[in-house]
Amino acid sequence: MNMKVSQRGEIMPASPIRRLVPLANNAVERGVKVYRLNIGQPDLPTPPQAFEALRHIDRKVLEYSPSDGLLSLRKKLKEYYSRFNIEVGVEDIIVTSGGSEAVLFAFMACLDPGDEIIVPEPAYANYMAFAISAGAKIVTIPSTIESGFALPPLEEFEKLITPRTRGILICNPNNPTGYLYTMKEMLQIRDLVKKHNLWLFSDEVYREFCYTGAPYISAFHLPGIEEQVVLIDSVSKRYNECGIRIGALITKNEHLRKNVMKFCQARLSPPLLGQIVAEASIDASPEYMLETYTEYVERRNFLVDGINRIPGCYSPIPMGAFYTVAKLPVDDADKFCEWCLNEFEYEGATIFMAPASGFYTTPGRGRNEVRLAYVLCKEDLAKALKVLEEALKAYNARNDRDSN
Amino acid sequence: MNMKVSQRGEIMPASPIRRLVPLANNAVERGVKVYRLNIGQPDLPTPPQAFEALRHIDRKVLEYSPSDGLLSLRKKLKEYYSRFNIEVGVEDIIVTSGGSEAVLFAFMACLDPGDEIIVPEPAYANYMAFAISAGAKIVTIPSTIESGFALPPLEEFEKLITPRTRGILICNPNNPTGYLYTMKEMLQIRDLVKKHNLWLFSDEVYREFCYTGAPYISAFHLPGIEEQVVLIDSVSKRYNECGIRIGALITKNEHLRKNVMKFCQARLSPPLLGQIVAEASIDASPEYMLETYTEYVERRNFLVDGINRIPGCYSPIPMGAFYTVAKLPVDDADKFCEWCLNEFEYEGATIFMAPASGFYTTPGRGRNEVRLAYVLCKEDLAKALKVLEEALKAYNARNDRDSN
Repeated sequence: MNMKVSQRGEIMPASPIRRLVPLANNAVERGVKVYRLNIGQPDLPTPPQAFEALRHIDRKVLEYSPSDGLLSLRKKLKEYYSRFNIEVGVEDIIVTSGGSEAVLFAFMACLDPGDEIIVPEPAYANYMAFAISAGAKIVTIPSTIESGFALPPLEEFEKLITPRTRGILICNPNNPTGYLYTMKEMLQIRDLVKKHNLWLFSDEVYREFCYTGAPYISAFHLPGIEEQVVLIDSVSKRYNECGIRIGALITKNEHLRKNVMKFCQARLSPPLLGQIVAEASIDASPEYMLETYTEYVERRNFLVDGINRIPGCYSPIPMGAFYTVAKLPVDDADKFCEWCLNEFEYEGATIFMAPASGFYTTPGRGRNEVRLAYVLCKEDLAKALKVLEEALKAYNARNDRDSN
Repeated sequence: MNMKVSQRGEIMPASPIRRLVPLANNAVERGVKVYRLNIGQPDLPTPPQAFEALRHIDRKVLEYSPSDGLLSLRKKLKEYYSRFNIEVGVEDIIVTSGGSEAVLFAFMACLDPGDEIIVPEPAYANYMAFAISAGAKIVTIPSTIESGFALPPLEEFEKLITPRTRGILICNPNNPTGYLYTMKEMLQIRDLVKKHNLWLFSDEVYREFCYTGAPYISAFHLPGIEEQVVLIDSVSKRYNECGIRIGALITKNEHLRKNVMKFCQARLSPPLLGQIVAEASIDASPEYMLETYTEYVERRNFLVDGINRIPGCYSPIPMGAFYTVAKLPVDDADKFCEWCLNEFEYEGATIFMAPASGFYTTPGRGRNEVRLAYVLCKEDLAKALKVLEEALKAYNARNDRDSN
């Protein structure tokens, strides 16, 4: 039976990470220990407040919550944002099923088929999937490892603007690069957005994780474009509760909010239990937040130092989030990552890295780069680094041998 | 600031129920008791197993679940479906964030912009919203209260089929009508789907609630179209846990499943806590299921009898789900429902009904009809019926007076 499926489903790229997952599972089945630096699933504990809240649910019916989320959660979020000088009203906050749904609904409500948004690459691969869902086109503008993944020059953006351009999307601090946009860069983005009357989609889910003392500049800190900002948020990363699927779409644009709410109402409500957990998690102690933060600082230093000590490897120093994009002395990181899972082990272990090609849309970009998530403890990172070093030696020795 | 928003967000209809919600809230603020028959939010308890599971979560991290859902839940669902002679593999089941996401992903993966699906109306209003999200067009085929909302004749479907027709969507047992399709009707649908090589989207979330002894026929019971069926399911209604947002998309079509999984992977995972609760709820005791069922049977009889005793009112006897569509002796049910909330009270109470216009797309259809959900206890239903009777008297007396 050859049933017709949608074109959008056909063209949606299967991410190279996904393609490697079965290989990693096979390795585990062969008894190989796999160090998973491929995905942003932290190993750190969810705050105790979250579990307490679950144990004390005093309800007879787990009923629908409001389509824009529990009022009590939205009030808590408002206070939370206020700590970062993000001054938004409770009515500006729409609770979503993860940051993912916030991105999807933002695209659905802002973009028509054929509309374009400009995104610096490398970029979080799923933006592409949500754009395809909305029929919109992501136009990427390369940032480079040589410049530490800084914002590309404004002229490069200007060149890409067409009558169909509707917005700019940034992720700050950045996944996958760990880059943190400076005030100068944010003001440049502001000017661009203002000049061309664009939406600024700003994914700021990693705001808790800024390591260099440089300030975190939210899109909502930029004067003059208040009605153009669509902020994407999620509690997943900051409280280590990726599974509860609670995020938020925040905008002061009332017309947009009204339309976003139609999508929210269609899906009835965000997850009730996740909202209860998220609300409790906002009360996580300063000690908890500091411990998480400190752990990432140490892991970052450890991983990046380690990478830069391996001959031929280079990683800029990420300023935020918990990822880095590193250059490896290989021609094709896709093949190398696959080889690590399929054919290599060192002292019974191997490493699972995300080939950076999945974060670029420009063909050929990032071919010798990988994204590494520092979501494992230092002991494991040390072993993973050793595996990587040995893998590179063996891989390149093999290649040298093959080419003789 | 006049920012351009998407056309799809603009054209998405705000449901007439939503429009009435603030009026109901105002009534409550005025101290009026509002009997809410407008929404399928049951007042019955969630099974104790659900709360037990929450109290005993033994995890340190609330992490991502697999994109297609926890394997343990999918295994349980497979067993559950097997009780209804729906024989599907674990691999055929994709867990979604509510039945809503299952409908959205089904449309996204099957339909391109401009594609059409045929849906008997009155129909669940949010199908329209999901179709608009996918850029697809819902073509409705009216069923009538006079025929008890039976399946319209096959010739009527044939007339609507165009080169862009990609599927038929049914809801069985039906929301909003409570109709249960007979084997003869289901075989007619099967023939149509087979002849024109269409998808059959079958929303069967109310399967537990069939009241007349007539059999529940699943789309998966129909021989010869196994690869064309996309079954939509949800645990919301059967375990009174609408808020946990757990549903499923089930298809034996491997190509479709592969594409649906791309949408699932983009949103990472369905809610973890909801999945834990859903899995536990499948173990709800036969006594719990029977109590819920018996309660609905009694409420149905009570409500439908009551409606049919009010002069000028008529409701067919719904065979399943927990709704009925009733005809009222008014010209415009939208206005009447609004009036009940805004201007009427009887012994300090009023009634919130869903105008049926929101379930039709054919203009003028269902103008004197309302959907009533029998999700309140009999005592409240009795009071609501009395309020309705008095409201109709007062409303029509007022109209008579106005026209003199």
